[in-house]
Amino acid sequence: MHIGFLGLGNMGAPMARNLLKAGHRLSVFDLSEAAVAALVEAGATAAASPAALARTDVELIVSMLPAAAQVKGVYLGADGLIAQVRPGVMLIDSSTIDPLSAREVTAAARAHDNPMLDAPVSGGTGGAAAGTLTFMVGGTAEDFERARPVLAAMGRNIVHCGPAGNGQVAKVANNLLLGISMIGVAEAMSLGVALGMDPQVLAGILNTSSGRCWSSDTYNPFPGVLENAPASRGYSGGFGTDLMLKDLGLASEAARQARQPVFLGALAQQLYQAFSAQGNGALDFSAIINLYRKDAQA
Amino acid sequence: MHIGFLGLGNMGAPMARNLLKAGHRLSVFDLSEAAVAALVEAGATAAASPAALARTDVELIVSMLPAAAQVKGVYLGADGLIAQVRPGVMLIDSSTIDPLSAREVTAAARAHDNPMLDAPVSGGTGGAAAGTLTFMVGGTAEDFERARPVLAAMGRNIVHCGPAGNGQVAKVANNLLLGISMIGVAEAMSLGVALGMDPQVLAGILNTSSGRCWSSDTYNPFPGVLENAPASRGYSGGFGTDLMLKDLGLASEAARQARQPVFLGALAQQLYQAFSAQGNGALDFSAIINLYRKDAQA
Amino acid sequence: MHIGFLGLGNMGAPMARNLLKAGHRLSVFDLSEAAVAALVEAGATAAASPAALARTDVELIVSMLPAAAQVKGVYLGADGLIAQVRPGVMLIDSSTIDPLSAREVTAAARAHDNPMLDAPVSGGTGGAAAGTLTFMVGGTAEDFERARPVLAAMGRNIVHCGPAGNGQVAKVANNLLLGISMIGVAEAMSLGVALGMDPQVLAGILNTSSGRCWSSDTYNPFPGVLENAPASRGYSGGFGTDLMLKDLGLASEAARQARQPVFLGALAQQLYQAFSAQGNGALDFSAIINLYRKDAQA
Amino acid sequence: MHIGFLGLGNMGAPMARNLLKAGHRLSVFDLSEAAVAALVEAGATAAASPAALARTDVELIVSMLPAAAQVKGVYLGADGLIAQVRPGVMLIDSSTIDPLSAREVTAAARAHDNPMLDAPVSGGTGGAAAGTLTFMVGGTAEDFERARPVLAAMGRNIVHCGPAGNGQVAKVANNLLLGISMIGVAEAMSLGVALGMDPQVLAGILNTSSGRCWSSDTYNPFPGVLENAPASRGYSGGFGTDLMLKDLGLASEAARQARQPVFLGALAQQLYQAFSAQGNGALDFSAIINLYRKDAQA
Repeated sequence: MHIGFLGLGNMGAPMARNLLKAGHRLSVFDLSEAAVAALVEAGATAAASPAALARTDVELIVSMLPAAAQVKGVYLGADGLIAQVRPGVMLIDSSTIDPLSAREVTAAARAHDNPMLDAPVSGGTGGAAAGTLTFMVGGTAEDFERARPVLAAMGRNIVHCGPAGNGQVAKVANNLLLGISMIGVAEAMSLGVALGMDPQVLAGILNTSSGRCWSSDTYNPFPGVLENAPASRGYSGGFGTDLMLKDLGLASEAARQARQPVFLGALAQQLYQAFSAQGNGALDFSAIINLYRKDAQA
Repeated sequence: MHIGFLGLGNMGAPMARNLLKAGHRLSVFDLSEAAVAALVEAGATAAASPAALARTDVELIVSMLPAAAQVKGVYLGADGLIAQVRPGVMLIDSSTIDPLSAREVTAAARAHDNPMLDAPVSGGTGGAAAGTLTFMVGGTAEDFERARPVLAAMGRNIVHCGPAGNGQVAKVANNLLLGISMIGVAEAMSLGVALGMDPQVLAGILNTSSGRCWSSDTYNPFPGVLENAPASRGYSGGFGTDLMLKDLGLASEAARQARQPVFLGALAQQLYQAFSAQGNGALDFSAIINLYRKDAQA
Repeated sequence: MHIGFLGLGNMGAPMARNLLKAGHRLSVFDLSEAAVAALVEAGATAAASPAALARTDVELIVSMLPAAAQVKGVYLGADGLIAQVRPGVMLIDSSTIDPLSAREVTAAARAHDNPMLDAPVSGGTGGAAAGTLTFMVGGTAEDFERARPVLAAMGRNIVHCGPAGNGQVAKVANNLLLGISMIGVAEAMSLGVALGMDPQVLAGILNTSSGRCWSSDTYNPFPGVLENAPASRGYSGGFGTDLMLKDLGLASEAARQARQPVFLGALAQQLYQAFSAQGNGALDFSAIINLYRKDAQA
Repeated sequence: MHIGFLGLGNMGAPMARNLLKAGHRLSVFDLSEAAVAALVEAGATAAASPAALARTDVELIVSMLPAAAQVKGVYLGADGLIAQVRPGVMLIDSSTIDPLSAREVTAAARAHDNPMLDAPVSGGTGGAAAGTLTFMVGGTAEDFERARPVLAAMGRNIVHCGPAGNGQVAKVANNLLLGISMIGVAEAMSLGVALGMDPQVLAGILNTSSGRCWSSDTYNPFPGVLENAPASRGYSGGFGTDLMLKDLGLASEAARQARQPVFLGALAQQLYQAFSAQGNGALDFSAIINLYRKDAQA
């Protein structure tokens, strides 16, 4: 299949490479010439602009962009993808943006007879390279089935979350819970250790009790508890604090629009904000435990 | 073995019955004559007071009391268990109290040559009746091994958490995390559903993603998601809101004494407090989701 | 002077009338024909669109719009005020919007050689009618002095807050503090009364101690403490809960962009959100005390 | 009058001196021999113990102790003040403790026919030395009138807050509001300055708008805004962070007992806790603004 790909950043570039590996023909665009050149070397064709890419004979376009402003900029307007692309070409946006923006862009695409899916991912740069991402997909069941083989070249777990925008809803809801759970584990572990518990013993108890959660049993923030967690390698790698901060911003904004309170979510956002403002935005988000550990503040 | 048992409430009574079933001789005390009479009918002997019970030839005493004030009242002072019991008799307090009070009582027991364990439980009244409680035990390894067969008659999972007080630390840390996680799930589920997700689909995504936790995959607060959860039977049974409120009070008090902040824990406590003040203290704690669901407030 | 006025809502209409009373010639625009007709009856001339208004010989334009989206829609773009108005005409936006949007629009105006001020107000519809508003003004000192006589026809307190955008910063900072203080007073009054204090006596003590604040001594949320406060007339009139909610949304969004935590502000926003979701969005914001008063929840 | 005084710390010692200056005969007790010696040098008589002091011919006893545990220890029990003092002698406790403990001790005193008042103070060590303290007094109107002349020797503002315990309620409610307001000002000032406002200009606007409060107009936490505030002398002197932390602990505990939520109060407590844990417990509580100021964290 001839596929267009926009956005060749840390996530987009390895995703695009996996489409090449799967045998697809690829036309690519990015503002960074170096990023484009690297993909061209791997076999892709460069397009001069999103509009130029849209005017090729691509059958499907995937985008992976930083935020809603870029997604709207690329898709909407007279020079945008939607205005320029042939009706019928499927559009898949894998950026993480707020659900209402996703629904707005999808409505514009449909008005132009382009099927569209929102398909944000989880799994990080590691999952992008290994082709093991999870795709949370919003759109019609028919469009989902059509896109599934393409997504399967980039990910392992392809989940249909319901109509347009629901891929973003699922992602925002999951990361809201994740951001809260991680701080919950940070508070429980810090308090327990401050009161004299061994961190390994405490984690063992939490993980077999009602406190059990991914943030404790798979990604424990206390150094040394899990050998392979970011906490045991200085909080390098993993999912950055500033990325969690962005996702909690999306969650609280989505909640504001839905007129829903998110008490713990809003407070969690402020805690990651404070931690980032101290210069820790690039550390894995589990480093938030350092807000609590007196020994770690030295 | 001749065992003394103090506190025959919703938890203590079935625990005491399981000791009888295991073949132990039992002397019991409770302020409620009816509670004592029921155990006597099952084969126990009544004692007139804690002091009277302490002066029998019991080899080990288990207590299950509402709060630290009662524990101190029963154990300390001239008429207390410690002053009245023979040196060497093992004391096991299964009440849920703050770790510092537990350590204070244990120190008093040791000064009188009585080994002592703090051994709070989880598993609720169902686990107490079925003999499947989890015991989180603080004390020396030697005392733990001596007590294990007795505890095994009342529970299935007997965990040594470290020195005196650490049973209470483990419980308080777990329930701090549990109280936070449950609200996290409530916020994520409510937000997702308000934005158009099907609750079953959303729970399925959370449970296979990084938001996975006991509060979502085993005890989901959204009605209908899990057939056997309290949410699917009107939030009856289960672990009451006021019990969670009590445990978060212990956690924030323990944190205050340890000079540790617990941001989300303190806010969670206020949310359960507000929900209880609206007349919901007897509902299962997962009913906290009703603070978030507009449809549920009608 | 010939003045243009856009936005004739609850605030804009009485402000426009005060400009007429001061002897200015007025051209007006609003999407509501009824609102325009009422002003025409009072002596104003109707314009068919913002662009049409811009193309008259107005010397100065005032706008009073609901949110940043409307402000950008009216000012920016090919048909916007800035593109259509003569260079040199002064633009004054009295809408309450986020500081970054205000700076963006001002920059566009200056690029077109139009001096521009952001001049949000406080004082409510009462102050708008009486001409006693406070204007918080951002822009150059020279532009501020030029605009002052016009603003003085609509308000009593005209404050220069610094360069462009700072009028919005001042408003957002004040209302952030106001939203927090009001809940602080609600918590202190509710707790004191629940513990047995007479509300009048308690308010008297707060107002002469270090808890003294506008929310307590001028606008006390407890019914009966201040005869003229909204609390003493069923929380009618005043500054609506949904307006406070909007302003706290601006504050938390501005804080996010500035990478500043606002812990209490974010939590206050959630509390007003929860109170609004219960159907109380139209009540004066001091009604938030009903979240705390058990007697008031019946 | 012959007056007994217990507790000669930073507050108690200057208060006792003011009683001497007013011409009263004084018997004093403190665990610190140096503190007692200093008062004896000023004209007081030393007592060997609280009980010994109680058995002199004192007509009235004032106590100024660190916390409820010390108050209960001194007043209650077989060797306590109440058991040892003659019926009719008036007891005045000026310690800051929780209202329920105050009521418990007062009930014990009345059972022994001793009138008792709770009379916590505000005004700090400066007010104690200058005799300008505010006394918030709980007890009967008759006892209040009897005690007023004695209190007037130590303070300027003597306020009757209602029945027993209400002096403590008033203090706890005021300091709850104060702790919240100060953080509100810290958030508003930090946000405004981060967005480009001059701190003096911003403070001027807040102080003439609805954000006006003691924490802004009398005790502004931003350095340089008020020449005489602790913020302008490195946060030395003033009311220490750890004292505010103690008072918020009393407030949240009182709220827990009254089954009242205190959302902002509980979060404020955690923020002072975190700030104290970073080693700032001895700084004036307005230094909490350093949690928000990026420039101040260097």
